[in-house]
Amino acid sequence: MYIPKHFEVTDVEEICAFVAAHAFGQFISSVQGRLFTSHIPFLVDDDLSRICGHLARQNPQWESLEDQEVLVTFLGPHDYISPSWYQSPGVPTWNYQAVHFYGHCKAIHETEQLKQIVNLLTHTYESTQSEPWQATYTESMLKNIVGLEIQITEIQCKYKLSQNRSMADRERVSVQLRNSGNIELSDAIERGSVIERSAV
Amino acid sequence: MYIPKHFEVTDVEEICAFVAAHAFGQFISSVQGRLFTSHIPFLVDDDLSRICGHLARQNPQWESLEDQEVLVTFLGPHDYISPSWYQSPGVPTWNYQAVHFYGHCKAIHETEQLKQIVNLLTHTYESTQSEPWQATYTESMLKNIVGLEIQITEIQCKYKLSQNRSMADRERVSVQLRNSGNIELSDAIERGSVIERSAV
Repeated sequence: MYIPKHFEVTDVEEICAFVAAHAFGQFISSVQGRLFTSHIPFLVDDDLSRICGHLARQNPQWESLEDQEVLVTFLGPHDYISPSWYQSPGVPTWNYQAVHFYGHCKAIHETEQLKQIVNLLTHTYESTQSEPWQATYTESMLKNIVGLEIQITEIQCKYKLSQNRSMADRERVSVQLRNSGNIELSDAIERGSVIERSAV
Repeated sequence: MYIPKHFEVTDVEEICAFVAAHAFGQFISSVQGRLFTSHIPFLVDDDLSRICGHLARQNPQWESLEDQEVLVTFLGPHDYISPSWYQSPGVPTWNYQAVHFYGHCKAIHETEQLKQIVNLLTHTYESTQSEPWQATYTESMLKNIVGLEIQITEIQCKYKLSQNRSMADRERVSVQLRNSGNIELSDAIERGSVIERSAV
């Protein structure tokens, strides 16, 4: 991904928290010479060494993962930014937060390993439910999916949050987004400015 | 994208409206043999023959578009679906709406064509602002971007909205999502069920 210096994020803890909060990613690879992507939730290791997920066995993407580099992308809140919001002149743009992981992927068919992935995914999302569902995956259910284990070789993180604008303009952008209901992106812009101020 | 029959959408008007409403897409291609994606807003023609956008000139992705098939993906609302919400047994899943376009992309450097793209993008997003910004793109500004014109050769649209569940389960899923604040996905599920009922 093209990342101008002022939009680049390298802090491992920050990237980990972002991916955990926006874990429904795009798994991109090549299938029979053509680009192919699936939309699935991922689990990410704390040290950003590995991410895991799974595909339906009928999804052909898992069949041709050997000997290729895959790309997994995660997108956070995003929105159109109008230059009419700025104090000083500007052009229209789009603010967003994105993380890209490059890596090599292994397809997992072994029952115990598969169980680990689906149990952890289930625990992650059920723990926020008022009455968490108890996972009871049978062997025949697990035969319908294929696990994915991706060893991460390169991390790219871009927070495009008006860091190239004055603090006054960023505040105006944040207020406009908040008023239009995009609280998450508004919060991200404010958080970015606070971090930058404290680092000066 | 892997699309089981019950999740497939083929209606051109529906797909067009979906992409217009979720136009911030992912532009996926290969750069020097590696997968590469950029996050940008797109304009889509009504007949789904063509989509247009632009990249920063410093983004290397436009330099190697010749002789390759590109993929553009659009994602709508999405969320975790807990089996505890169902009346009948089930497993965890994720609901989402996604459109994938395959095609061939031409990089645009000519001033008038570039102006058309940025003017139309600006008009699209400024028209909803209370005080629309008036586009005044100079030639030197346009030198900082490169236009993209993609002739679409294949369309894939997947609405994964619990269509494989009973109407009672879909209603329960829709209510849960609405209560948790994911109104857009809840609406999409309800709309899907209404269309299906009227088609019976």
